[in-house]
Amino acid sequence: MMISYVNGQFLPEDQATLQVGDLSIQRGYAIFDYFRTVDNIPLFLDDYIDRFFGSAALMRLEPLPLKSELRAIIYSLIQKNKLGESGIKIILTGGYSPESYEPVSPNLVLLQQPLVTPSADRFRQGIKVISHEYRRELSSVKSINYLMGVWLQDKVRAADAQDVLYYRDGEVSEFPRANVFMVAKDGKVITPSDHILGGITRKKLLEIAALKFEVEVRPVHIEEIKTAAEVFMTSTTKRLLPVTRIDETVIGHGRAGDITTQLLADFLQLEESYLRARKVPVEF
Amino acid sequence: MMISYVNGQFLPEDQATLQVGDLSIQRGYAIFDYFRTVDNIPLFLDDYIDRFFGSAALMRLEPLPLKSELRAIIYSLIQKNKLGESGIKIILTGGYSPESYEPVSPNLVLLQQPLVTPSADRFRQGIKVISHEYRRELSSVKSINYLMGVWLQDKVRAADAQDVLYYRDGEVSEFPRANVFMVAKDGKVITPSDHILGGITRKKLLEIAALKFEVEVRPVHIEEIKTAAEVFMTSTTKRLLPVTRIDETVIGHGRAGDITTQLLADFLQLEESYLRARKVPVEF
Repeated sequence: MMISYVNGQFLPEDQATLQVGDLSIQRGYAIFDYFRTVDNIPLFLDDYIDRFFGSAALMRLEPLPLKSELRAIIYSLIQKNKLGESGIKIILTGGYSPESYEPVSPNLVLLQQPLVTPSADRFRQGIKVISHEYRRELSSVKSINYLMGVWLQDKVRAADAQDVLYYRDGEVSEFPRANVFMVAKDGKVITPSDHILGGITRKKLLEIAALKFEVEVRPVHIEEIKTAAEVFMTSTTKRLLPVTRIDETVIGHGRAGDITTQLLADFLQLEESYLRARKVPVEF
Repeated sequence: MMISYVNGQFLPEDQATLQVGDLSIQRGYAIFDYFRTVDNIPLFLDDYIDRFFGSAALMRLEPLPLKSELRAIIYSLIQKNKLGESGIKIILTGGYSPESYEPVSPNLVLLQQPLVTPSADRFRQGIKVISHEYRRELSSVKSINYLMGVWLQDKVRAADAQDVLYYRDGEVSEFPRANVFMVAKDGKVITPSDHILGGITRKKLLEIAALKFEVEVRPVHIEEIKTAAEVFMTSTTKRLLPVTRIDETVIGHGRAGDITTQLLADFLQLEESYLRARKVPVEF
């Protein structure tokens, strides 16, 4: 059984609990972040920690732990579980609010789980998604509110799809747990600018894409994306994953596109060079 | 310390916990309901239980307890805490989902707390509210998602207000925790029809208002409500509470209106007759 962390204590995950008065359970008021480890090295950790503190500030959760403290907890957890490849989730809740509405001193929780990234086969084949008119509230905050995403799972399954793309007033935003990119017929790499969570994979991908392609960050219409040559999602768990069908529309040739494939190779290289630079300091 | 209930066990509230893997903490996926007790009698219990099971069905939470089981738990909790006047919250979560996304067997939690309804002074004075463009997702479900409501508390305080009225595309829906009614200048009692949670107090009030006034349930525009003779909110904890200012607009004469006052008297009478009919069976 994995070891988890709650407010200063490392515990087996079935003993990692919060009182039911916590504002996450009472009012869905909490933020989190989620990153991968490879060979027990937390990938792009600074970026994730910065985003975590950004979400906490936007949600006015305080007092916060020091970044150095949080980093020490993360390395202790990695050392205790020794999973190698894993996902680590950090949750910060609104705390044990006496009147169950106003945030008080936050509860800090960390969980680690084994994680397998998508196979090459899955990448080549890509996935089908449906579209749904919805926009996440406070979209720049990585809050725990996945009410709509979880609720839509039945609709996703019924359509024999694997995920759902949100849009509102025609404007595409994101998937519940991933950002969206399109490659236009002229080879431009385009991703929505607004109403999104700023993904760390999205951020890294924009950097590497700009080295080889013309990149645009701007509003994208749901009808425009259906005419794209290639569409893919980016996320921590999936890196890049081609989207080969949106509703009834086949995207491009209906399989992983050339530019998507190139970008995945470049992203894997970035990952490798990040890990290589950090192999020495972490030892058990 | 109050006694709470978690999955078959009655526990002191600081020992009433859920594992952090619960879908309420992971994804904000849970429903609840909330009712009052007066003299240890749960007020309008059937209505609340029906709504609770309705929310659970809409969120596809299953298996559910039997209504008779839930009722027995509620009466046991009342007997253990003997609070007289109280609020009881029933929470049903998405459970300990292995991959933290799909609901599994729900966790059932009950909490009881002392509760005081607003004073006659507070009623006469009414409250100021601000308006904010927002609409709750899955609005007919009493979910735990109060992300926006809690987040707006700072804005509410900064405006020296007590609550926030949601509208979208001009159409008024509700407060985060209460329904809204207006009394037009011609004496009609009007409440929004769509994008709302079906409040039990709202339902009872519509029944008693129809005995004396013309009642309309239809879309209400944010500009229309600001021209009303009277505005009030209805909720379990507040019964009826006059809204005497919306943003910078003073409503009517800026204090509790005659029809609102009449409706509160009628509601209190309904409450009394409900309680009188049930005084005998509940004994400790």
